[in-house]
Amino acid sequence: MSNTGFFLSFEGIDGAGKSSHLDALAAALRQAGHTVTLTREPGGTPLAEQLRHLLLHHAMDAHTEALLAFAARRNHVCQVIAPALARGEVVISDRFSDATFAYQGAGRGLDWDLLLQLERLTLAGFGLNPDFVLKPDLTLWFDLPAAVAAQRLASARLPDRFEAQPAPFFAAVAGGYARRCAEDAPRFARIEADAPRPAVWQQVLAAVQSRGWLKEGA
Amino acid sequence: MSNTGFFLSFEGIDGAGKSSHLDALAAALRQAGHTVTLTREPGGTPLAEQLRHLLLHHAMDAHTEALLAFAARRNHVCQVIAPALARGEVVISDRFSDATFAYQGAGRGLDWDLLLQLERLTLAGFGLNPDFVLKPDLTLWFDLPAAVAAQRLASARLPDRFEAQPAPFFAAVAGGYARRCAEDAPRFARIEADAPRPAVWQQVLAAVQSRGWLKEGA
Repeated sequence: MSNTGFFLSFEGIDGAGKSSHLDALAAALRQAGHTVTLTREPGGTPLAEQLRHLLLHHAMDAHTEALLAFAARRNHVCQVIAPALARGEVVISDRFSDATFAYQGAGRGLDWDLLLQLERLTLAGFGLNPDFVLKPDLTLWFDLPAAVAAQRLASARLPDRFEAQPAPFFAAVAGGYARRCAEDAPRFARIEADAPRPAVWQQVLAAVQSRGWLKEGA
Repeated sequence: MSNTGFFLSFEGIDGAGKSSHLDALAAALRQAGHTVTLTREPGGTPLAEQLRHLLLHHAMDAHTEALLAFAARRNHVCQVIAPALARGEVVISDRFSDATFAYQGAGRGLDWDLLLQLERLTLAGFGLNPDFVLKPDLTLWFDLPAAVAAQRLASARLPDRFEAQPAPFFAAVAGGYARRCAEDAPRFARIEADAPRPAVWQQVLAAVQSRGWLKEGA
């Protein structure tokens, strides 16, 4: 196993099915000897979980959403993610910065460059190089057509303020993920999320194995 | 009276005595025929008041504080300040952006340029000119030596997370207000806040009269 920490994020529109693979990947990495912190955004600290609640249940404009999302992220990185990585552990987060670009940028129409500025001013300074902006080492992007996700969600739990958006919103969000992937391709593994669940899991495993964090056959 | 709105902020370190003059000024402006919204930061909307509570009672780093303060401000401007100004009304806010520069910038050591970026991305776009950054038309800066403020606070209510800071913190915050004033002098009226209360009130009135918003003798 590696003795420096690594940071994985799971991304995708609501209904893409990422959550059901988060626990399984954490278990597989623990089995391989890693210490794993499984966390989520918005959230991951007591303060950020309160901000998550405000984000999901209060009406507000896209700028306010993005500022709150990055405030929660800053707190999450300071208190959970950066310390765990510094101890050489693995962090798996159910969503990270890409989600703000997808939802508030592509979904809600907030200017992409404004989000890049916000990302830089929130997440620079965690490395030795002051220009380094903290990003996951690997992002598993669960890519699913918005129409399929909508069908899945229709039979699921009571929707929050984002899940209740109409289908074109999710098509736009999916486009935001595609743009983010295109702008930083080496960081991303695209998961074909409308495959049957075992096939999705094989894609997840293969992506993590390709980085050397799990042996093949694990 | 003017038929376009105007925006006044009151600024100063904790203990500077600004609060006792806010109500009196609102009353005087109403007497003169203005419709006045009296509000405060952080706060001023249901969401922003919840953010105020988190800011005052949760430990967090200066970046998180600044992001939360600007999130609250964005919501406050969208829902309260900009609509009132568009209706031609007067808005008086107990603190606005200068407080974030003073407290999180000078007080907590957050980079000044980072705050300028955050101010621009939060508050640009409310005018016809997209580069216009929303600021008060007049800021009454209650300037008081930090040592005097500390004496006043010692006999006051139970302190919140900021009020409980040691004296050098307030000296730094006062320096932040002085810097902000130096960078945008025409917007500021400096109030000598260790004068007796009636003399402070005369300074407040004179500053507002000098802009033509109250007749002399009002």
